[in-house]
Formats: sequence, structure tokens, C-alpha cells
Amino acid sequence: MAIKTLSAKAAAALDKELMSTGAFSIDQLMELAGLSVSQVVYRVHPLNKGNRVLVACGPGNNGGDGLVAARHLRHYGYQPTIYYPKRSKSDLYQRLAKQLEDLDVPFVEDFPSALKSTDHIVDAIFGFSFSGEVREPFPAVIKALEETKLPVTSVDAPSSWNIEEGPPKSGVGSSFHPAFLISLTAPKPLVKHFQGRHFVGGRFVSPSIAKKYDFEVPEYQGLDQIVETSPTDQKL
Amino acid sequence: MAIKTLSAKAAAALDKELMSTGAFSIDQLMELAGLSVSQVVYRVHPLNKGNRVLVACGPGNNGGDGLVAARHLRHYGYQPTIYYPKRSKSDLYQRLAKQLEDLDVPFVEDFPSALKSTDHIVDAIFGFSFSGEVREPFPAVIKALEETKLPVTSVDAPSSWNIEEGPPKSGVGSSFHPAFLISLTAPKPLVKHFQGRHFVGGRFVSPSIAKKYDFEVPEYQGLDQIVETSPTDQKL
Repeated sequence: MAIKTLSAKAAAALDKELMSTGAFSIDQLMELAGLSVSQVVYRVHPLNKGNRVLVACGPGNNGGDGLVAARHLRHYGYQPTIYYPKRSKSDLYQRLAKQLEDLDVPFVEDFPSALKSTDHIVDAIFGFSFSGEVREPFPAVIKALEETKLPVTSVDAPSSWNIEEGPPKSGVGSSFHPAFLISLTAPKPLVKHFQGRHFVGGRFVSPSIAKKYDFEVPEYQGLDQIVETSPTDQKL
Repeated sequence: MAIKTLSAKAAAALDKELMSTGAFSIDQLMELAGLSVSQVVYRVHPLNKGNRVLVACGPGNNGGDGLVAARHLRHYGYQPTIYYPKRSKSDLYQRLAKQLEDLDVPFVEDFPSALKSTDHIVDAIFGFSFSGEVREPFPAVIKALEETKLPVTSVDAPSSWNIEEGPPKSGVGSSFHPAFLISLTAPKPLVKHFQGRHFVGGRFVSPSIAKKYDFEVPEYQGLDQIVETSPTDQKL
């Protein structure tokens, strides 16, 4: 059975619905989304295989998911470092950053240097609301992610990819192929261009919401907040 | 090594600090607390041994933790039923209840009847801020919990117990001995009167906060949000 996907427009409407009639707060949703991301990292990068993780956070919700994931990873025993060059002024993001500071998680400004002292990377730069051009200072960051041999876990979308069309035809991001991707709530159309290991997270979607948006709630196991989808599921 | 405990007064100060200088929102903390509670239930009541769980919620934060736990349990595959006779008017609690309604989780008003069609119970009636008398309609509920042979999991405190002194000397709650207890952030002094299986949850406490309040962050394993403490740890 093919996975059904959610367009950028539908994903935005779903998010809005979860926070209006669904009665979730953004704090709650981001906590659960970030928890899902941390569980993917835990599964694909066992602690004893290198516990240094560089989390690159963008200015919006995707970056917030990264901040939450980094906190959980710190509690699991990883050593996260945060690259967060365009800090949001919203109260929520400032609080998420403060929570990391209280755990002595370092924030760094030089991404290329940080790449030299990490074992793997979380790409929480852009999510499903991304479109158009990659703005400063992120082009150099995406380029570094294209060139690094370290494994990258992207949150919701490989940053710079078009949500519907996948990697850009040329320029920054055109050869960015992360090893791991976690789709939050449901995969976006870009997954058909993704060749790595794919997970779905966000165990808060009700069957009625999934039905309304025409996708399936994945079959989570046990206490897991994530499900790995088999490659055949991705033939759309 | 004996577990260090947190007095009712210290627990209130810690909560306040987490939400002020700690920069957590109550939505976040309640989500993580409720997640911990759900993980205890999953561990002590495997799904194939009876998936019906009655969650008794009080009017305050303890009840909120119960509402969150019930949602996670629903997603794990349990069939929760909620007894929530004194609904808080605060926005957060109304939203948590709505999230359950959207998952078709039933709310019931008759506790004794609900007891007849469940496999186990979560006691989320009163937490560390409880003191004094058990108010209506809860005396009959506590009495039913004392008399039932079904296993009860209490959240932070067996409801009606004095946080420092343990079970009341006489009257309602004096013979209430739940099978399971989850202490949130740190055990309260009442644990020395508790004879069942004891867990600690709330994997968000920083080492510096724990140090300030003179308790230990427990050694969580893997992705667990809970730790079971060995009986010897409870000899205080």
C-alpha cells in the first residue's frame, strides 16, 4: 500500500486545524514533534556510535522542533550543539532555547567549524512551509550539508527542497540527499525523491483528522512515537 | 542509596521555578508528565492483559496529567474511560478534554458503574498540592478505590494521603494502598509508607535544578520517560 502524502497547503491547513478545533497548543505539538525527531536520532545513531549531534535550526517551526529534539537528546545522553543563527523573537522559541542553555547545551555561530566536531547532524532548518529561495545565512549551510560525509537527519523536508517537487533542479540543495528523513504527521510529496531511511512521527493525530485529510495514521508500535516505513511504501 | 524526597512546599517551589526561570510552559510540563504516567501503565498492564483503563481525574494539575496520560494510552491501543466530575474552567484543561473527545474517549459520571467495566485504574485525583479534607464528590471515589481488587496506579500521591505523613490515620483513604505509584520529578515523603511498585517520571529536570532542590535525577534508560526504583531505594 502506498503512503498517502500531504501537500504543503494541506499540511498548513492540518496544523491550523489541530490548533483550533483540535484544541492543541503549539507548545504541545512542538513537544511531541521534537520528541519524535529525537527518537529517530536515537534509533539511527546509537549512543555508543558517536554521541555528538549538531542541530541546525531555522527561524520557524521546523527550528523549534529541532530545539525540542535537542533537549530530549541531551536527556538521553547525547551531546548536542545548536546552530541557530536567526532566532525567532517569539516567546515559545526563546523559552525552548533557554531550556537548552539550562542544560549547558552550547549554541555556536560557525557552522563549518561545528561540522568538524560532530558525529551526525539534524537538519531542522526549513519545513513544509518553505518555498522560494534559501535566504542568508543558510545557502552556505545547505552547501555544507550537501558536501559533508556525515549522516544527516532531516525534519519534515530536506532543507531547500520544494515540498511538492523535491530537490531544486540546480544550485543550492540540488545535490542534498540526507540519509534519514522524518515526516511529521504525514509525508509530503517530496518523499518520492527521497532515497534514504524514512520515518513518520507525531503520534497525536486522531483517526478522524487523518480521514479528513485523506492519509493513514501509521501503525505505531508499543510506546514508539515514530514508525519506519518500508521502501515499498514510498513508491507513490 | 536512599532516594531523596521533596516536601510539598519544595515541590510547589520547584514547579514554580520550572515555569519561571526554567522557561517551561505548563502545556509542555503536563504533556511530559502525562507521557510518563502513560509509560508506567504500559509497563505494568500489558495491552494483552486487559486494555480497559478508568482514569479518575481531579480538578487540578494532577487531573490534567491524567487527561494527557489517557490520550497517550488511547494512541497505544488502550480503551480509556474518564471520570472527571469537577472540570476545571481553565483553557488548558478544556483543551485536554477536547483532545480526548476527538479520539472518542468516553467521559462517565457514575464511578462505581465504571469500575465494573474496567481492567485497571489511574488515580489522578489529588497530587502534591493536596492537604486537608477530601471534598465531594471524591470521598466515595476514594472509598471505592480502597475496596476494589483492581490494580490502581496513583499519580504523584495516592489520593487522600498526606504528602508528608502518608495515609490518613482513620476515615477515607486510611486503607488505600495502590499497587503502583509514579512520582513526578521526585518522590514526596509519603513514599516511605508505600508498599507497591514505585516509578519516577518527568525527564525534563536539569541537573542544576535537581542539585538546587537536593534530589537526584534518576538514571533513565534509553528513551524511557520513567525509572522503576528498587525497593531498597525506598528505605528512607
